[in-house]
Amino acid sequence: MKHGWFVTFEGIDGSGKTTQWKLTEKYLRKCGYDLLALREPGSTALAERIRKILLDKKLAITPVAELNLYLAARAGLVQEVIAPALKQGRVVVCDRFYDSTTAYQGYGRGLDIALIRKLNALAVGSCIPDLTFLVDVDYATSLSRRKKTSDRLESESRAFFKRVREGFLEIARKNKKRVVVLDGRTSVDELFAEVRAWLNRRLTI
Amino acid sequence: MKHGWFVTFEGIDGSGKTTQWKLTEKYLRKCGYDLLALREPGSTALAERIRKILLDKKLAITPVAELNLYLAARAGLVQEVIAPALKQGRVVVCDRFYDSTTAYQGYGRGLDIALIRKLNALAVGSCIPDLTFLVDVDYATSLSRRKKTSDRLESESRAFFKRVREGFLEIARKNKKRVVVLDGRTSVDELFAEVRAWLNRRLTI
Repeated sequence: MKHGWFVTFEGIDGSGKTTQWKLTEKYLRKCGYDLLALREPGSTALAERIRKILLDKKLAITPVAELNLYLAARAGLVQEVIAPALKQGRVVVCDRFYDSTTAYQGYGRGLDIALIRKLNALAVGSCIPDLTFLVDVDYATSLSRRKKTSDRLESESRAFFKRVREGFLEIARKNKKRVVVLDGRTSVDELFAEVRAWLNRRLTI
Repeated sequence: MKHGWFVTFEGIDGSGKTTQWKLTEKYLRKCGYDLLALREPGSTALAERIRKILLDKKLAITPVAELNLYLAARAGLVQEVIAPALKQGRVVVCDRFYDSTTAYQGYGRGLDIALIRKLNALAVGSCIPDLTFLVDVDYATSLSRRKKTSDRLESESRAFFKRVREGFLEIARKNKKRVVVLDGRTSVDELFAEVRAWLNRRLTI
């Protein structure tokens, strides 16, 4: 079924993952790949509507509601956009994907991780990333990089982000073949040199 | 924890359940109960935003996305509104609740019913209805009663509504103590006489 290649970028807010995602898009386009760059939650009409809800600081959103909103956005994105693109042999580069749900709603909010695994599986089907970059930074570094006006999720506490970071690292330990951990304190250029080296090694289509 | 009483109305679109829900509200207020009348999805700022998305015919919403959107709306409603009301000893009367998800997304769309049970449990916690009225009608009757401009869900096929109806009846068979099946072809007044009789018998607070 699947002929394309799927790479995701994960990490806490302010880790620098979005910069690496953008550089990857630029680089792979230059290499001549038929590329699709996406961000989560978003990239479909439904998911953009959900994204607005999720980032709205005025709304009361319980952890379970938040979990379901992310999954709803993802289910639509996978079925409408990612699965067809991979089927067509395209390279899909996504800023956040299902590891973020495990890290934020599972490790961060404390929801049942086994249940999240089932829900993620239901939402993504066979669209599992071929490679995931986890850009890892400590809380202090991430905080110093964030823009001054924070959205609902960025306003969370230090303890929350520490749990999320630990969650991401745990996911990386459990998925050694898929997830590459990068040191987010490294400069943008050095970090991208590492990303590029991994892409050149692993992207074989 | 819970001192109040919780009653829900279920059935396919056009079954007449909303009319019975409204009559119940009026009746119980007249009886002097401290009442909270709700509809699902809706009744919170988050859920009303989600409701708009769900009923928007222009949006592509996959079955899994739809399931997650309903659950997100419900999780918020339960935690913010229903659980506190029941704790305060109020009577909560809700137009649709978790049986609709089992019937529509499970039996109707064909999603895994065991997984839906777990998700519903996660969303509602201990807020299980004390009594549920299932207003049962055949597809032809329901169709003749619906307004001419249908929303996204009402535009579904005959086969879909037949599966949903069968799903509701199956839920009733599996929850005999909680779910009362009423014949929706009966006149509004006769139907409400039945509802009232059940309320008088079962509402003991």
